[in-house]
Amino acid sequence: MPELRKDPVIGRWVIIATERAKRPSQYHKQVEERKGGFCPFCPGNEKSTPPEVLSYRAPNTLKDQEGWWLRVVPNKFPALQIEGPLRRSGEGMYDRMTGFGEHEVLIESPNHDHSYADLQVEHIQEIIWALRDRCVELRKDSRMKYIMVFKNWGREAGASLEHPHTQIIALPIVPKRVQEELSGAGKYYDYKERCVFCDMISQEVADSDRIVTENDSFISFMPFASRFPYETWIVPKEHTSFFNDIQKNQVTDLSSIMRTIFSLIKEGLDDPAYNFMIHNTPFDETGNTPFYHWHMEIIPKLTKVAGFEWGTGFYINPASPEEAVKHMRDVMRRAGKTDRSQTAAKLAMIH
Amino acid sequence: MPELRKDPVIGRWVIIATERAKRPSQYHKQVEERKGGFCPFCPGNEKSTPPEVLSYRAPNTLKDQEGWWLRVVPNKFPALQIEGPLRRSGEGMYDRMTGFGEHEVLIESPNHDHSYADLQVEHIQEIIWALRDRCVELRKDSRMKYIMVFKNWGREAGASLEHPHTQIIALPIVPKRVQEELSGAGKYYDYKERCVFCDMISQEVADSDRIVTENDSFISFMPFASRFPYETWIVPKEHTSFFNDIQKNQVTDLSSIMRTIFSLIKEGLDDPAYNFMIHNTPFDETGNTPFYHWHMEIIPKLTKVAGFEWGTGFYINPASPEEAVKHMRDVMRRAGKTDRSQTAAKLAMIH
Repeated sequence: MPELRKDPVIGRWVIIATERAKRPSQYHKQVEERKGGFCPFCPGNEKSTPPEVLSYRAPNTLKDQEGWWLRVVPNKFPALQIEGPLRRSGEGMYDRMTGFGEHEVLIESPNHDHSYADLQVEHIQEIIWALRDRCVELRKDSRMKYIMVFKNWGREAGASLEHPHTQIIALPIVPKRVQEELSGAGKYYDYKERCVFCDMISQEVADSDRIVTENDSFISFMPFASRFPYETWIVPKEHTSFFNDIQKNQVTDLSSIMRTIFSLIKEGLDDPAYNFMIHNTPFDETGNTPFYHWHMEIIPKLTKVAGFEWGTGFYINPASPEEAVKHMRDVMRRAGKTDRSQTAAKLAMIH
Repeated sequence: MPELRKDPVIGRWVIIATERAKRPSQYHKQVEERKGGFCPFCPGNEKSTPPEVLSYRAPNTLKDQEGWWLRVVPNKFPALQIEGPLRRSGEGMYDRMTGFGEHEVLIESPNHDHSYADLQVEHIQEIIWALRDRCVELRKDSRMKYIMVFKNWGREAGASLEHPHTQIIALPIVPKRVQEELSGAGKYYDYKERCVFCDMISQEVADSDRIVTENDSFISFMPFASRFPYETWIVPKEHTSFFNDIQKNQVTDLSSIMRTIFSLIKEGLDDPAYNFMIHNTPFDETGNTPFYHWHMEIIPKLTKVAGFEWGTGFYINPASPEEAVKHMRDVMRRAGKTDRSQTAAKLAMIH
């Protein structure tokens, strides 16, 4: 079973997941071995994953058989496991916890090659509904404190399987990075009595030179203090602390803006690897917390994190967000468009 | 001039260094272009770097000409610049600071291919002395608050030039990651009245299953809560908060243990990319701070940081340090040795 261990200096927990272990010589080979080989996520191979916990599928087709267009399964090599108790223990000065939690994989479509940049807007809507359904379901387990929805696309971004998938991890603790964000946003709220993310949206709209695109419900911009070149956020315009509370019209608009942004990343940056993460409120919060605002952060993997960043937590970004946005606007312009709100439709045409 | 910008949510500063900017299509090509091409760090090309600030060279040879065996130069594309004032300003809700600081490169030897795993122990001693000399020199500038010594080896670790080099960055602020470490170590000290690193050394010696090797002045172990497979620390046995205060016998022992560890990483892990960082006390501290303990952290790049890690600050490590140490001990054993303290010498023989 995976184990959680706490760093005694800065208090950061790590997951030691030895079920995923490799011999040292295997680290380099990881992806080459899989390329062109057997894919456990392709239709027909349903039995090679654990039984599905959710699927959207054609009428009269059976669970764990073909006929689905979207499928959620537990991760076969989970970073955390739902079985067994949540137990803390000490070992001298060190602290451990059992690796309790849930790790699920959403297989985005039966197509081995298509991800968000290539899927129909309607299909992305279904993915968002399925992610929300799982978040709502997992929140019912009172032992869970936080949920992270994320995607690793491409080897450089840590993907170990090619078939497009998005992942969901539910955790028994609120992770350090999230605590920092909540604490920072909380301090801002104490001082200003306004949500820091709502204020960012206002200033981005006023400054305008970091906005990539927007629609009725969402705005996408490259943050002022971007850590990475072309780091891009998608933020709901209306203050909402929980991703779980997303409304139907927001699902439509999120799907459309995701389609635009991921197409831009593919077209404008030569189809790089990327990660995205949905930053959400911990489960303990009830109602619409006034100081936190859920959002999606997207990081194309164009540079490497180097020693200076590891040592200081300080990032060196070789591209200002203002310059990066200019490039993305050029890409949109070249795709034959003048009206920002129609980016998705227009970009769709160039495929 | 580079610019520092502060994230308004979690208060993390980033460096926007547009002098290092590329067109989007250049990110992928980065290293291929340089391979086999012109090397600004090789002997004979001294004029292609800024003038040297330190060199160890043969008698009667001239500055910025051949004859050196170790050379320190300012970085031609610095993340931070020493010219110009340190100025803070606001832009609406956002905060900026001029990108003030010093960024130097230590060219480890005239040999384009040899790094710590291949150099003679005596040569590594000279490198350590040179690093210390520069740290002492840079500390004299009262505007500087912190210094980070680090190395990026290999493209995966963020190295943009092949020729082995170690970097030094002096900063006008104490970075967030370092503040967290100081604050964590400070809390431990308040509670226990002992240094957390000294306590770690005691427990590692007692447990013994995470120790890679040791000598009179240094111990090397894989930390209990390792973030990455084969993450390895080198820690001075005697409590010392400042790297700058390193003693002559410690330089000898550090050089020898570095030679062993980097040889083990090269031999045992198939010469992977890696980063190392020297974690040091901020310049403001005077004397031997009782709660902080300088040390070196080494991270071989065997896995990718993925979305879950970016989103949560939580690391998933697929190899327990205990298993990883076993593998390294096997490598030592295969290199024909039984006595840990002689690892360096024995490993040197297998080259």
